[in-house]
Amino acid sequence: MKSIDGGVCAARGFTAGGVHCGVKAGSDPAKRDLALILSERECAAAAVYTTNRVKAAPIYVTMEHLEEGVCRGIIANSGNANACAPKSHENALEMCTMAATATGLEPQDFLVASTGVIGQTLDLAPIQAGLPGLVKSLSADAAGSDAAAQAIMTTDTVKKEAALEVEIGGKSVRLGAIAKGSGMIHPNMGTMLCFVTTDCAITSDMLQEALHTVVKQTFNRVTVDGDTSTNDMCAVLANGMADNPQIEWEDEDFAAFQAALLALCRTLARAIAGDGEGASRLITCVVHHARTEESAERLAKAVVSSALVKAAMFGADANWGRVLCAMGYSKAPFRPEYVDIAFSSAAGSVAVCEKGSGLAFDEEKAKAVLTQPEVVIDVCLNEGHDQAECWGCDLTYDYVKINGDYRT
Amino acid sequence: MKSIDGGVCAARGFTAGGVHCGVKAGSDPAKRDLALILSERECAAAAVYTTNRVKAAPIYVTMEHLEEGVCRGIIANSGNANACAPKSHENALEMCTMAATATGLEPQDFLVASTGVIGQTLDLAPIQAGLPGLVKSLSADAAGSDAAAQAIMTTDTVKKEAALEVEIGGKSVRLGAIAKGSGMIHPNMGTMLCFVTTDCAITSDMLQEALHTVVKQTFNRVTVDGDTSTNDMCAVLANGMADNPQIEWEDEDFAAFQAALLALCRTLARAIAGDGEGASRLITCVVHHARTEESAERLAKAVVSSALVKAAMFGADANWGRVLCAMGYSKAPFRPEYVDIAFSSAAGSVAVCEKGSGLAFDEEKAKAVLTQPEVVIDVCLNEGHDQAECWGCDLTYDYVKINGDYRT
Repeated sequence: MKSIDGGVCAARGFTAGGVHCGVKAGSDPAKRDLALILSERECAAAAVYTTNRVKAAPIYVTMEHLEEGVCRGIIANSGNANACAPKSHENALEMCTMAATATGLEPQDFLVASTGVIGQTLDLAPIQAGLPGLVKSLSADAAGSDAAAQAIMTTDTVKKEAALEVEIGGKSVRLGAIAKGSGMIHPNMGTMLCFVTTDCAITSDMLQEALHTVVKQTFNRVTVDGDTSTNDMCAVLANGMADNPQIEWEDEDFAAFQAALLALCRTLARAIAGDGEGASRLITCVVHHARTEESAERLAKAVVSSALVKAAMFGADANWGRVLCAMGYSKAPFRPEYVDIAFSSAAGSVAVCEKGSGLAFDEEKAKAVLTQPEVVIDVCLNEGHDQAECWGCDLTYDYVKINGDYRT
Repeated sequence: MKSIDGGVCAARGFTAGGVHCGVKAGSDPAKRDLALILSERECAAAAVYTTNRVKAAPIYVTMEHLEEGVCRGIIANSGNANACAPKSHENALEMCTMAATATGLEPQDFLVASTGVIGQTLDLAPIQAGLPGLVKSLSADAAGSDAAAQAIMTTDTVKKEAALEVEIGGKSVRLGAIAKGSGMIHPNMGTMLCFVTTDCAITSDMLQEALHTVVKQTFNRVTVDGDTSTNDMCAVLANGMADNPQIEWEDEDFAAFQAALLALCRTLARAIAGDGEGASRLITCVVHHARTEESAERLAKAVVSSALVKAAMFGADANWGRVLCAMGYSKAPFRPEYVDIAFSSAAGSVAVCEKGSGLAFDEEKAKAVLTQPEVVIDVCLNEGHDQAECWGCDLTYDYVKINGDYRT
């Protein structure tokens, strides 16, 4: 398995693009807001969606269009969530129709996604006007993926893109993805969009199975602020152009594909956590020597979700009592009196708690460890052999600033 | 029922005081950090505690001392949580012994509470040195309650105290309380301490029952940052000196007492929410016309707990989509397409969502409504007849500042 360039255009047979069409009236003309990903052949496809009871219209339309497990492309906009507003459902359908018209395909060939403000009617005129130029701009090069990745960004400060190559069934198979996500990220997915393309030959059932397993271990272990969004979606399109023997059951090839998908999504999940709104550092909590992976995951999530832990990380304050406290209210079983806690980063490691009780430690060294751009909170439960890691970020002034005045 | 002065000294037979003893080395000598509340007669007593799996030593010691349902007083310190540190348990016991020695009572006559930093060993020397002066300073006047209320404050910006008088069984009965709580407040109690005194004659069983019901509807509906603390406690001491016929079952007198306790605790719960760390306004979410009180409570809690809603309230931004979104991930059942949402305050009311869909509204008016010190998020589910209200506060730069560097 090796990293390659090209994002969603890395896999054979995919093109992508992104343009500014003006979804949000008066928005910066340099900001792309409409993305399209297209496969030259029909794809097996799978997706997972937000668990929020309030789901945006594009989620329902995508669910419908994926009923057969096949599609050809994805149309997505930023700047408006197309949720909880008059005509949301019609507008989501209409976006697919417009994409179909512009590409000579059928509306049900498209998945549709939106991200942005909730509750305002999506104006389709700019999308209709922008589509011909977007289709014309579609590219199979890295530039196409780059433009699409930019077009789905909202408060993201960095573009999220990754791709890799792996051998499956004697063939070189490529997987690539673009993602967006910054606020409203939580274990059960925040406004997070992730579009994965691959030239692997795999059935949609196997694709769905791999995606479920992988999302549980990657995007569902990311938290920025505990809010889950109405619009989250992670979709995978597989067009089979790698010519590997089609993956139809849980064999070795499936395991190789799933491992590659896991590596790809893990990279993006970490990128999303590190780019949490206003974040100044990526926080990873690893809980190990747990009796079950489930309890380890619950504990790690509670730690990276805690506003007090997050604020302490912002202040580079080794306030490990908040870590233990967050574990305590996670509702996962553990023995506080067995717990060891350490903070580590590129600057080293500092043990702060042993068997549930505070250790004397060098505050200067702790400060040095905690001021790095990536900090690991290492929790040993001393109870068993399972583990899980979750990702989050610190809570900063900028988070408050960004979210105190997002609509205007 | 009428409000009166005097806090925990309002009820007959109680004295209280608070001094600076220096629990936290180098702390401001003007900041009181040791409180004592004492009854001249034995009290029926009841308490509820944090649900955090990691419980501070004073919680366990108080549980032990309350096994018979009686006590004489409460000793409490701020500046150190006496949790997860070597000798925590011995130190909590020793605090009771010191209080007993200074007052001529037994260690088990005392409940003990601590609030402050987790994981540092509590130094008892200042407490031992401070106790004689504290006992000498005990007062049955409002000044005694005032000093005790100050001594349990940590990051609180305002002192929390209330008292009221009510007729029960033909007698005037008084209830008073002091409370602290600012960060780490959540529906299941944050570092929140509340000490209630009353001269009502009531059995400890009935007292426990009233307290359970009341806490569920008051302190457990407050949230500041979603963290629950290791040290939370709400205790009630009833010394019977009002000479009302002792309340022994769920009769009219019990109902009157419980209503008074509810009013008292509701006042303090709102004060705690409004004084959330860094808060600039109190946010109340009322969910009504629900099918059950439980679902209404869950929805209202999700709304006041949402970091995005809280940041929007800080920015006085009528971003009601975040309200609906938070309801959506609360896991409570409701029909999004039935929901009406309005914001209201002393400056008026503005409807922003009807039947799950955005309304056009006057942004200027919304701004005026949302910039008040107290804002109500009014959610009508249009489904049934039950309701619940929960309290929280906005998320501000100051929250981040306070919690980014709390230990140092």
